[in-house]
Amino acid sequence: MNALIFAGGNVKDYEFIKKYKSFYDIVICADSGALHALKAGLKPDFLIGDMDSIPENVFEYIKKLNTKIIYYPKEKDFTDTELAVEYALSLGVKKAIIVAGIGTRPDHSLANIFLLVKYLNKGLELKVVDEDFEIFLIKDEKEIEGEKGDLLSLVPVTEFAEDIYTEGLYYPLKGETLGFGTSRGISNVFLEKKAKISLKKGILLGIRVHSN
Amino acid sequence: MNALIFAGGNVKDYEFIKKYKSFYDIVICADSGALHALKAGLKPDFLIGDMDSIPENVFEYIKKLNTKIIYYPKEKDFTDTELAVEYALSLGVKKAIIVAGIGTRPDHSLANIFLLVKYLNKGLELKVVDEDFEIFLIKDEKEIEGEKGDLLSLVPVTEFAEDIYTEGLYYPLKGETLGFGTSRGISNVFLEKKAKISLKKGILLGIRVHSN
Repeated sequence: MNALIFAGGNVKDYEFIKKYKSFYDIVICADSGALHALKAGLKPDFLIGDMDSIPENVFEYIKKLNTKIIYYPKEKDFTDTELAVEYALSLGVKKAIIVAGIGTRPDHSLANIFLLVKYLNKGLELKVVDEDFEIFLIKDEKEIEGEKGDLLSLVPVTEFAEDIYTEGLYYPLKGETLGFGTSRGISNVFLEKKAKISLKKGILLGIRVHSN
Repeated sequence: MNALIFAGGNVKDYEFIKKYKSFYDIVICADSGALHALKAGLKPDFLIGDMDSIPENVFEYIKKLNTKIIYYPKEKDFTDTELAVEYALSLGVKKAIIVAGIGTRPDHSLANIFLLVKYLNKGLELKVVDEDFEIFLIKDEKEIEGEKGDLLSLVPVTEFAEDIYTEGLYYPLKGETLGFGTSRGISNVFLEKKAKISLKKGILLGIRVHSN
């Protein structure tokens, strides 16, 4: 089962969400993320959080839908987004896409991106997507679809990402090791509609930035 | 020697930069970051990068100032911001603040934040600051100044941040270990004008979000 998870960050244009129509089986909203789901024309199947950021009228509207509402106390140990991800996992979700995971709060944006690493270890494959980019993890080997001219940034999220090989990118890596904190992998470029990345050890964050 | 480094991200209001007036000795600009420096009323001492994003007229203007211009080829191995940080290090800078390190490109924002970790190991203490927040590292022990009600998020950037103790925060940590990817440390709250964090092993990213 796959899920679309709406967090409380920014969405400029809801059109791009249609791209994922065939991907998800359920819609999970973290607090004010429900507003994004409704604006995208989607009914939240689950609404989770302390409900401190969802507008009152939106909350009243959702109460009338067939949405399962799961309250958490305000003084909780995790962000609403992590609660939503954890809930997805408890439902047996294997893959989920987080929409509106990036916003004006850098701590929340960062925490949402780092969830990808935490939940990879729990068997849940997460992406954070936006109109302009997709953020995902690369471990062992991955084929990435894109468009010629799209940017692909590779950012280690482990101390080292070792023995990296790339295919289909303008700046090829041929067995290089990237250490945490280097900007070396930023702004590589798709030469075709597909790129392939492999590495022997460690985890890379892949960030595909759409060129159009 | 301390430096103010202007990257190419977002600045909504240049007023906050005045706060750092007594902090820095030199102003280093990464490519279009020069525009931010000028808008803040500051003369760039150094301008570094491939100059692919600085507006032409701004570049012409800067050429007439007493600014040292250091060109890099477009096909370089690091972002302009990392080049600026590396240059600061080569000048003997011990502490630097990156302004406009966060922007619309999540890969650049992330890379800029992760530079804090890379350059800590090289003996350069970095912060990324904005109107609304300050991002810095916490290793061993750190006192952090803030205002009552400010938020402080603690995000591990190592596999584990072990044995964390906090003072002056609403949600105290008493020897807890936080693993990479957890949202547990997000949105703690200053009880007073000062907080103290200590940990035995690992590195935390501290993100102070101003309440006003």
